[in-house]
Amino acid sequence: MTIQSKFSRLGTDAAPGQEVRQLSGSLDSVLRGDTIAGRPVDFSHGDVDAFTPTPHSFEVFSAGVEAGGKQAYTEYRGDLGIREELAERLASFTGAPVDARDGMIITPGTQGALFLAVASTVSQGDKVAIVQPDYFANRKLVEFCEGKMIPVRMDYATTEGAAGLDLGQLEDAFKSGAKVFLFSNPNNPVGVVYSREEIEEIAVLASRYNATVIVDQLYSRLLYSGVNYTHLRAQQVDAENVVTIMGPSKTESLSGYRLGVAFGSKEIISRMEKLQAIVSLRAGGYSQAVLRTWFNEPAGWMDERIRKHQAIRDDLLKVFRATSGIQVRTTEAGSYIFPALPHLSVAGNDFVRILRLQAGVIVTPGTEFSPFSESSVRLNFSQDHAAAVAASKRLVTLVDRYRA
Amino acid sequence: MTIQSKFSRLGTDAAPGQEVRQLSGSLDSVLRGDTIAGRPVDFSHGDVDAFTPTPHSFEVFSAGVEAGGKQAYTEYRGDLGIREELAERLASFTGAPVDARDGMIITPGTQGALFLAVASTVSQGDKVAIVQPDYFANRKLVEFCEGKMIPVRMDYATTEGAAGLDLGQLEDAFKSGAKVFLFSNPNNPVGVVYSREEIEEIAVLASRYNATVIVDQLYSRLLYSGVNYTHLRAQQVDAENVVTIMGPSKTESLSGYRLGVAFGSKEIISRMEKLQAIVSLRAGGYSQAVLRTWFNEPAGWMDERIRKHQAIRDDLLKVFRATSGIQVRTTEAGSYIFPALPHLSVAGNDFVRILRLQAGVIVTPGTEFSPFSESSVRLNFSQDHAAAVAASKRLVTLVDRYRA
Repeated sequence: MTIQSKFSRLGTDAAPGQEVRQLSGSLDSVLRGDTIAGRPVDFSHGDVDAFTPTPHSFEVFSAGVEAGGKQAYTEYRGDLGIREELAERLASFTGAPVDARDGMIITPGTQGALFLAVASTVSQGDKVAIVQPDYFANRKLVEFCEGKMIPVRMDYATTEGAAGLDLGQLEDAFKSGAKVFLFSNPNNPVGVVYSREEIEEIAVLASRYNATVIVDQLYSRLLYSGVNYTHLRAQQVDAENVVTIMGPSKTESLSGYRLGVAFGSKEIISRMEKLQAIVSLRAGGYSQAVLRTWFNEPAGWMDERIRKHQAIRDDLLKVFRATSGIQVRTTEAGSYIFPALPHLSVAGNDFVRILRLQAGVIVTPGTEFSPFSESSVRLNFSQDHAAAVAASKRLVTLVDRYRA
Repeated sequence: MTIQSKFSRLGTDAAPGQEVRQLSGSLDSVLRGDTIAGRPVDFSHGDVDAFTPTPHSFEVFSAGVEAGGKQAYTEYRGDLGIREELAERLASFTGAPVDARDGMIITPGTQGALFLAVASTVSQGDKVAIVQPDYFANRKLVEFCEGKMIPVRMDYATTEGAAGLDLGQLEDAFKSGAKVFLFSNPNNPVGVVYSREEIEEIAVLASRYNATVIVDQLYSRLLYSGVNYTHLRAQQVDAENVVTIMGPSKTESLSGYRLGVAFGSKEIISRMEKLQAIVSLRAGGYSQAVLRTWFNEPAGWMDERIRKHQAIRDDLLKVFRATSGIQVRTTEAGSYIFPALPHLSVAGNDFVRILRLQAGVIVTPGTEFSPFSESSVRLNFSQDHAAAVAASKRLVTLVDRYRA
């Protein structure tokens, strides 16, 4: 594959946060009506001004700067003292041991961890099972590594009490030679959590086919009431076959510090460190110190954060469900919601641009997550409550305006 | 290539900063004499406690945190306002225009920029010309991208007034199909600067063979008295064929913030941003704010920093040159010095371990930079002056002790 063809598949123009680089093209011929006034809301990512970073995170960062060279130059895999603190808390959270010395790496964001995990397990021609829909970078990572993606459908729309993963398709993927399965739980963009039965069956299949599972649990702390979460790494599965990825960037609003962690398989973590040495050296030294606040927040802080997000979720669900033709599943964890819109007179990507232009509402088009999701849009509702509700009303107003 | 064989070539155990992960193995049978007391010095990287970060860098970071979401979530290629400030200063420094919007990307460290630049220009089987000796990651980057390295010798030891690059070998590399040439200027590990004639000839050859040149100018601000520096990008060369990489991590001691920039070819920068979107998303948002201090230091600050480094360099040169059999070239820029030691009774890598064990002196083995450099060691002398001189004396004491 030439470098040109490799990069032609790596588009980012529709990726969240890149709207500023989109060429506008002409929408004039399809526009209907006037713009709708209202405070603009960027649902492409959480608003860290509405939900502010963990208390004391800046003080801990400052102490890191104060510590000087010791904190600036850590091992490539991150400061051992910090890894030791985290290992204990992550073991307790996930229900299985974490080896601070050899089984954990600190990365620049969870994106950094995902890249390293995929690039450490997938080389040219390797088959990788990928859920549809799932986080938009998963497919791109496999393509960049010149692996072959084997899609596995998740029928979230008509399933209850489970994510709706097609476990038969997953087994077929393993049968056809997939050595890696990569998925997010809770699912990004849908916000559903895999059931205990689904996770147990993934563990069984990974063991049967000796496959590596990379599970992105970025939002696994932000669980809404009544939802149970099952950690794959705590199931009957070879620990060397599982890499779990988390980070404090979302629920804790620490995105500005670019921190993630991967833990589990020592062999894969060791490769990830070798690769990090040439990709970015290490997560920012001073930023690493901020991990001391993680899973160590003031009492009641996380409960309050969950309560507030749940209230926003409930209000958005009301807005969407009051609109004929919008289908939406209840978010079970995290701050994404993924409504499927009715048939419109304009293409999905154009509607996303119209939303920005006429309503000051930025969402991410569903096609970033699956080729079958053209009618859906993803909203990150970690926003100012009132502004988010008002913006979702503008969204449904435009849905009505552009109905086919 | 299987993933296992790919990673077996990516060793990091002897890489700078990773000494803590080295298994000690037994040196007992070769050890001579006792340990030498003295303040330990880690020459594998600069000491940011001895040479502290740029004044006001922390205040500017704090302001970035204060700015909140706007600073936390920038375009993948970095905040446009900051790019605009930098573009002007970098154009003035390098003597050629920099396009803030399309011709520049902010990365997590210069390592991040190097990875993205190589991975955006080299795919399987592509030939890449690499200088020997040069920065240890260059070779690994090419190998990770499954490119084919074509070595070009730099005969720094017997050259004066130039780096000593074998331009005939470089042309042969291009003739044999190399489409990319990657090198550091000043050279890491030797600290020599390429002459105007060398840079002009590199420009001529890149134009003649339509090759891309990636030039790592990380240390190009720390020039010692009497040294002239020639910027490749300001020569007669197609601007789309050159990517220049710099960053404030070294001279400015801002390593803890993990910042780098790449600028030049719009096509390659555009690929680099697509790749950054899946590798790390962006350089830490708050950290990006620290770039506002770059090329914007208080009057006289950089002169003073250069003066102090030059004084340490001069003292180390005296220590090494007073020792029979040590060959060392005068560092012209940056803070690396690369003495070649006389023939010893132990292997080069073992001597490096002995230095740590018996003298509290950490250096990087020459073999990290070139297969022909086993007798050399690299020292980063951006250290406390007195401690660095004392440590270099312990080094030569051990050289005398282990002479063959």
